[in-house]
Amino acid sequence: MGMRVRALVAEDRTAVAEALVASAAFSADEVRVALEMADAGLAGDYLLPSIEAEGAVRAYACIGHATLTAASWYVYWFCVHPAWQGRGYGRALNAHIEEQVSAAGGERLVVETSGRDDYARARRFYERSGYALAGRIADFYKTGDDCLIYCKALR
Amino acid sequence: MGMRVRALVAEDRTAVAEALVASAAFSADEVRVALEMADAGLAGDYLLPSIEAEGAVRAYACIGHATLTAASWYVYWFCVHPAWQGRGYGRALNAHIEEQVSAAGGERLVVETSGRDDYARARRFYERSGYALAGRIADFYKTGDDCLIYCKALR
Repeated sequence: MGMRVRALVAEDRTAVAEALVASAAFSADEVRVALEMADAGLAGDYLLPSIEAEGAVRAYACIGHATLTAASWYVYWFCVHPAWQGRGYGRALNAHIEEQVSAAGGERLVVETSGRDDYARARRFYERSGYALAGRIADFYKTGDDCLIYCKALR
Repeated sequence: MGMRVRALVAEDRTAVAEALVASAAFSADEVRVALEMADAGLAGDYLLPSIEAEGAVRAYACIGHATLTAASWYVYWFCVHPAWQGRGYGRALNAHIEEQVSAAGGERLVVETSGRDDYARARRFYERSGYALAGRIADFYKTGDDCLIYCKALR
């Protein structure tokens, strides 16, 4: 597939912004917060694993240890540029996250995502990747837009 | 009951620390993070409603609007000094939070708490206060210590 897994660097910021904006799933506010967290990650607050293909980052995630937990990690953002979906980049990125978190002593991943119809593909991705639904907060994001909490225990 | 509901001020920091430390429920790390968030609240990042009785703060909460949501608020910390429990301060504090969040346009409160036995009283408090269980993340805090997610829709 000609892809390379590596940590995001400052020069990738434009490619990350492009991937987020191209994802119809994210609102302008969400893109802004995701980029702020990418900047915080570049400063050391989060890990930013990514997939580079054909000279640019096409997928990335923003992950971090959950405060006050022994071994739980949040996947705050997970984005594959829509023009580069269907090539296994999401699966490769998730596999890398699991290795990276396990190596850091992490024992589970937690993802919060939307219950909206346009997130069905994302939810299927998490379910196929071994995440199980752990909760649902009705109308959390806005009326009719529930928060679904998924968790995957790592070995 | 001779209590007064008011916002926390910098001079209350010692009373808050006392209440947190006296609560056997909180670890040293949790007390540290709760005090950091109280400081951030005093700087404007969170709201810090509290109950003063007999000259000092005996109960307080740290609450804030959940980023990227239209009208969801997190109750990050909620603490009644154990020597001052059983006097309705928790109920009064929760009622004040609901008013304050509703006045700010908030429509729901979300609380994450522990599934441990020593949190049974806290869970019963939330259930009696109208919160419903929305999720459970097994072993989230540590092995055998689940995260329970409660939500209360306002009005």
